[in-house]
Amino acid sequence: MFDFNLQVTDGNARAGKFTTPHGDILTPIFMPVGTQATVKSLTPRQLEEMDVQILLANTYHLYLRPGPDLIKRFNGLHAFMHWNKPILTDSGGFQVFSLGDLREVDADGVTFRSHLDGSTHRFTPEIAIAIQEKLGADIIMAFDECAHPDDHVYIQKAMERTHTWAERCLKAKKRNDQALFGIVQGGIFPELREQSARFISSMDFPGHAIGGLSVGESKQDMLQTLDVVNRILPPQKPRYLMGVGTIYDLIEGIRRGVDMFDCVLPTRLARHHAAMTYKGRINMANAKFREDHRPIDNACHCYTCQHFSRAYIRHLINTKEMLAATLLSIHNIFTLVDLSQKIREQIINNNFNSFAQEIIKNLNESS
Amino acid sequence: MFDFNLQVTDGNARAGKFTTPHGDILTPIFMPVGTQATVKSLTPRQLEEMDVQILLANTYHLYLRPGPDLIKRFNGLHAFMHWNKPILTDSGGFQVFSLGDLREVDADGVTFRSHLDGSTHRFTPEIAIAIQEKLGADIIMAFDECAHPDDHVYIQKAMERTHTWAERCLKAKKRNDQALFGIVQGGIFPELREQSARFISSMDFPGHAIGGLSVGESKQDMLQTLDVVNRILPPQKPRYLMGVGTIYDLIEGIRRGVDMFDCVLPTRLARHHAAMTYKGRINMANAKFREDHRPIDNACHCYTCQHFSRAYIRHLINTKEMLAATLLSIHNIFTLVDLSQKIREQIINNNFNSFAQEIIKNLNESS
Repeated sequence: MFDFNLQVTDGNARAGKFTTPHGDILTPIFMPVGTQATVKSLTPRQLEEMDVQILLANTYHLYLRPGPDLIKRFNGLHAFMHWNKPILTDSGGFQVFSLGDLREVDADGVTFRSHLDGSTHRFTPEIAIAIQEKLGADIIMAFDECAHPDDHVYIQKAMERTHTWAERCLKAKKRNDQALFGIVQGGIFPELREQSARFISSMDFPGHAIGGLSVGESKQDMLQTLDVVNRILPPQKPRYLMGVGTIYDLIEGIRRGVDMFDCVLPTRLARHHAAMTYKGRINMANAKFREDHRPIDNACHCYTCQHFSRAYIRHLINTKEMLAATLLSIHNIFTLVDLSQKIREQIINNNFNSFAQEIIKNLNESS
Repeated sequence: MFDFNLQVTDGNARAGKFTTPHGDILTPIFMPVGTQATVKSLTPRQLEEMDVQILLANTYHLYLRPGPDLIKRFNGLHAFMHWNKPILTDSGGFQVFSLGDLREVDADGVTFRSHLDGSTHRFTPEIAIAIQEKLGADIIMAFDECAHPDDHVYIQKAMERTHTWAERCLKAKKRNDQALFGIVQGGIFPELREQSARFISSMDFPGHAIGGLSVGESKQDMLQTLDVVNRILPPQKPRYLMGVGTIYDLIEGIRRGVDMFDCVLPTRLARHHAAMTYKGRINMANAKFREDHRPIDNACHCYTCQHFSRAYIRHLINTKEMLAATLLSIHNIFTLVDLSQKIREQIINNNFNSFAQEIIKNLNESS
């Protein structure tokens, strides 16, 4: 039911096909995030029109509202949110650990209080898997601990816990129509990352994720960590870099052998009036766009750039119209989805490096 | 360039075709409102998918932001907002008179302060036409005074002013590719409405609007006023009932010979979580919909009802997701657009009355 076909490699960059119960995913791929079973401000039809292949949804949020049992009674997330292509759910771990003082971790799991009403809840590896089985995504994630990147002692402890929990997740998993990915942790410490990559690789996961990056470490530390981990992860399984989604990071991740990415950045930036482009981010609220007849990006083929001027988008922002977020979300998601498709073509044509160089030279690290 | 073909009548109900530079409008018709050059939360593509034929935009709002000169430099509203079908602009009168203490009316026009920054501005019939010529809609409206419905002395004065201004608007108009509609005023006083309908009918307008209704008067007063006015307005020109848009009002307006309607209600209700249905309004935030697998309306063919459950919409509202407003706006606008199309078919089949009776019996006056 799940098969990863590594079709072409170009240096460390890879073009592949991952088969799931809801269709094939052509990699490298960017996965937009539908936190609460909706990609903010967009309909599923708009996502299909952008050629989005797979969405991510968040277990923590859906656990709180509307609850996994309800979603199960609606035949799972696909039916509930009307998305008939593949879905990936995270384990809830990242959100729970982000709660800070509201959570307490022990060897068995995490007790936390809801950010909504303060009510107390508990996630363990078994519970995280059970919830994800009710949600019914095609790809589900092991329950891991994502710790601060620079505390070696704590990071090691969190990594070891993550390993134990990975084993428990594999054991707890019952459904055969879901692929469970293991997650490599270890902060920015090469020896921990190596250890984690070996441990997770040794288990029977159909895919591997790299967690705990893009959480405050330097760009150099992130990329070096990818080098360390991807040297160890088996090439015949897909590799997913969690929570990462700038143009720069997609290119540098793919260059280092990553196949899958997700990030809230495109929609979050859109709600804050920023457009992602190959020349960096543009603050579309800027008064200098008042009379600008050009689209956000002349070369972009998204619905927004095909039909609307910067002046119109700036007008929508200026008048606080919801359509501003929609048009910018369309542009930003399209940009990353289209980039991953273009890179795939370049990998297949054995031209990744010069293509990547062409893009990177106009970008700074944060774009 | 503008031609109204009264195709079929069924009692006082009428099916017609109004030709404009941006295409034909088949009447009766409901026109969604794009106040600030956007129908809130929807893309033009979504409006086309709903078979929307014509949009309304507001001169007052567009005058303030982004300004008529800017829109003119973008080749008018159609190009600016990417809507290639017909557009109607109001004259700004209704919004200016709604400003209350912020405006002062004299024989020549109105001086008002912007609701945004308090800056002082002035509209006269000539200015209202000049702005609308810059905006470039297919149908533009005479500058009128919409007064409180129950003060006979003031209403008469406002009506007389509206008549003088109508003459000035006709004289001021320069563009031949825009149809200027005259507006009948006169509150809820039959003798004033008769006088106004005769006066406005006597002038050379290609279409007539009925203003000053649905502003606080009783439903009975509104419908009686329509009877009075439509007995006088010439049948060979289209009739537009301004600012009206419930299911009930569309049916009762069409029954009395109205051809065109506009209202912000479908999108405003959507933002306040209400769905318009043939069984009345539904508050979709209600907890009773938590597990409701049904669409808003089983018989509805809109995108929302074809693909999403009440439970999903209620979840989006509950989690404050923007998609809630989008999906409800789609449903509400579709409902009125689809209703006007169905009524048109029934008129053509000489079956309007029994069709209308079937719908009205399940509705209350405010739905």
